[in-house]
Amino acid sequence: MSKLYAIGIGPGDRRWMTAKAIEAIESCSDLVAYGLYLDLLGKLCHGKQHHVLPLGEEIARARLALDLAAAGKTTGLISSGDIGIYGMATVVFELLDRQLQGEEAHPEWLDVDIEVVPGISAMQAGASGAGAILGHDFCTISLSDLLTPWDTIEKRIHCIGAGDFVVSFYNPASKKRHWQLNRARDILLEYRAPSTPVLIARQVTREDEKLNIVCLGDLDAKDVDMFTLISVGNSESRHIVNGQQHWVYSPRGYSKQI
Amino acid sequence: MSKLYAIGIGPGDRRWMTAKAIEAIESCSDLVAYGLYLDLLGKLCHGKQHHVLPLGEEIARARLALDLAAAGKTTGLISSGDIGIYGMATVVFELLDRQLQGEEAHPEWLDVDIEVVPGISAMQAGASGAGAILGHDFCTISLSDLLTPWDTIEKRIHCIGAGDFVVSFYNPASKKRHWQLNRARDILLEYRAPSTPVLIARQVTREDEKLNIVCLGDLDAKDVDMFTLISVGNSESRHIVNGQQHWVYSPRGYSKQI
Repeated sequence: MSKLYAIGIGPGDRRWMTAKAIEAIESCSDLVAYGLYLDLLGKLCHGKQHHVLPLGEEIARARLALDLAAAGKTTGLISSGDIGIYGMATVVFELLDRQLQGEEAHPEWLDVDIEVVPGISAMQAGASGAGAILGHDFCTISLSDLLTPWDTIEKRIHCIGAGDFVVSFYNPASKKRHWQLNRARDILLEYRAPSTPVLIARQVTREDEKLNIVCLGDLDAKDVDMFTLISVGNSESRHIVNGQQHWVYSPRGYSKQI
Repeated sequence: MSKLYAIGIGPGDRRWMTAKAIEAIESCSDLVAYGLYLDLLGKLCHGKQHHVLPLGEEIARARLALDLAAAGKTTGLISSGDIGIYGMATVVFELLDRQLQGEEAHPEWLDVDIEVVPGISAMQAGASGAGAILGHDFCTISLSDLLTPWDTIEKRIHCIGAGDFVVSFYNPASKKRHWQLNRARDILLEYRAPSTPVLIARQVTREDEKLNIVCLGDLDAKDVDMFTLISVGNSESRHIVNGQQHWVYSPRGYSKQI
C-alpha cells in the first residue's frame, strides 16, 4: 500500500525529534516541505527527492504529497513543530474529505495509508526553555487572520481572558501583520494585570535562540516576528529569579498543600 | 554544578521519546518517578538508582529530586507525556519559588542547574493516531478538582464552549472521580451539537491502545478511566470514514480557498 507520513520535526534542533519521526523520514523516497525545514534536517534527508514549495502554497504541498504517495512513492510531508498543531496534517485531511465528498477527482488518494507523526510544538519548546508556563490549563490561538475571521479570533481572546487560561499565540506577527498582537494584548489587559508574565520565545533550539520574560503591559508587536512564539501566563503565573536565571511557571497549586 | 533534568518521556512507546530525553536519562545516576514510568523506559534506566514514589506524592517526588541533585547526583525527574503539561516540572518550580521566598530551608536547591526536557503530550499522541483534531485553536483542561476548585473548572468549560475551541480533557476520570466528565459534556452541549466528534484515546502507543471516535451526545464517563484522554472537536471538526479507517480533524479552512 502506498504510504504518506505527515511528520512533525519539532522546533529545529534534530535532538528534539522523536525516534519515530527519524525512522519515518529515513523510510521515505520523497520529501515535501517548505525549504527551511529540509535545511534543519541536514543529512537526514540527503539522497531523497526534495519537493520544495514556498510558504503560502500549503494546499499545493498537501496535494503533491498525496499524489506522490498515490503514485507509489513513500512520501514524507514535513512541518516544523507538531504537524498536527497549526501544521500540514489538517490540510491533508481537508483534501481527503473533499475527495470523499466527490469534490476532487483523485480516487487514488483513498488508497494512501496516512500516518501522522507528532513533534514537539513551539509552545512546548519555549515553555521548557524558560520553566513551565504551560503547567496549568492553557489554550493556543493563531493570530493569523488569513483563514480565520478576526472577529472569531477576537472573541476567542475574550474567552481566554474570562477563563483565566494561559495562552500561546501562534503566528503572532509577520512583515505584513503586526497590529493583531497589540490588540490581543489590550484585550487580555481587560482581564489580567499588566504585571502578568509573558514569555517571548524566538527561534527556540536554533542558533539564534532568544527567550525573554516580560510583563503583559510591556508586550509589543515591534519585538516580535514570524519566528516568535508568545505565551501569556494566567493570573497565578510567576516570574521568578534565581541569580542570573529567570523562570516563568504556572502553578498547579501543590504548594498550597504544604 | 549539580544538575536536575525534568524529563517528559512521551506517551509510552520509547520511539516517541526525543533524542534529547534519551541523552538526559543516560546522563543521570538517579531517577525519580512514579513506578509505571520506569517500567515504560525498560533498559534505558537499568544500572541507575531508582526512587519510586506513588501517585499522590508529587511534592515528595519533587523535593527528593531537588535534594538528590543538590547532593551532587545528576538526577532525572520523570513524567509521562510532556513534563511541562500537567507534569512534575511545575512542582519543582513551586518549591524553588518557596525557597526564594524564604518558606523552605534548602538554600542548596538554589545551586541546582534545572533543565526541562519536553515530550509528546497525550493530546498530541491521541490526535495524531486518529487524524488532526488539534488542527485549529484548542485548549486543555484538567478535570481533576483535587487542586483546582470545581467552580473554576466549570467556568473554564463555559469559556471554551463560548469560544468554540477544540478542547482536551486531562484527568477525565478515575476510580474516585467520575461525574466531572459528564458534567463537562453537558456544559459543552449548551454550545455545541450532540453530533460534535469526540476522540477517546486510551493508552496511546502502548500495548492496549484504543482510539474511538464518538459523538459528544454519546460521551459517557463509564467508558473512560485515568489512562484515557478526551478531545472534543469544535463546531467545524469532522469525523470522516475512508473504508475501514476513521479520522477526525479540525480544518483550518484551507479548502475554502480552493
